[in-house]
Amino acid sequence: MNFKVYVVSKKIEKFYLEAVAEYEKRLGRYCKIELVQVKNESALLKKLSDKSYMVKISSSREKLSSESLAEKIESYGLSSVSDISLVIGDVELECQERFCISPMDMDPGLEAAVLFEQIYRGYRIINGEPYHK
Amino acid sequence: MNFKVYVVSKKIEKFYLEAVAEYEKRLGRYCKIELVQVKNESALLKKLSDKSYMVKISSSREKLSSESLAEKIESYGLSSVSDISLVIGDVELECQERFCISPMDMDPGLEAAVLFEQIYRGYRIINGEPYHK
Repeated sequence: MNFKVYVVSKKIEKFYLEAVAEYEKRLGRYCKIELVQVKNESALLKKLSDKSYMVKISSSREKLSSESLAEKIESYGLSSVSDISLVIGDVELECQERFCISPMDMDPGLEAAVLFEQIYRGYRIINGEPYHK
Repeated sequence: MNFKVYVVSKKIEKFYLEAVAEYEKRLGRYCKIELVQVKNESALLKKLSDKSYMVKISSSREKLSSESLAEKIESYGLSSVSDISLVIGDVELECQERFCISPMDMDPGLEAAVLFEQIYRGYRIINGEPYHK
């Protein structure tokens, strides 16, 4: 599985980039995942691939538990979806799905750290591997 | 207002401590807030003050938006509540209130970063100050 996490934000704090890098490293054995920072919506639109399954992270739609995110990742693996773009930031775009990782508005860098951690947690759940709460 | 954020966890990643320190610094003009890491439940119980208003962070109760957290902080300020303990971690304890900052299970250090960021966001909202989404 290929994940690209697009973060629309002028600045991402260094400690969030470090958190993301740590989960990227841990996720290496499960999938390919990459953070792509873009400055604004037009830069985002230039980067997005038509072929990718598009997910927008929002604070107002379906709320996901860690278990239901794991189920989603597993179902993508079973279907033909192998390339997933997840978009964080204050932009409007067409997408196949919307995830809500929190009912709260969050700093985009922090939201990226949460998303990476949840994808890592999802793979641990799928593989029946322990992960502290 | 005095906040103590107790995190029951053997380890908190360095980047989360840096995130927390950054929000602690930014929050300096609004309140006193401090992270207290404890290794386990018995260490927590020794640290907790009877006089403090106790809030447990959980993944299953009332889900808060950033605006409703701001309203809560404001209402504490208007009532006699000036000392608040927020507890993160897999422990059972009596409390006055439970907050859910996400329906997902999260690394306790990450949960602390989210909570600090949300309290900072809450004060920005209360004071009508701008804060990017």
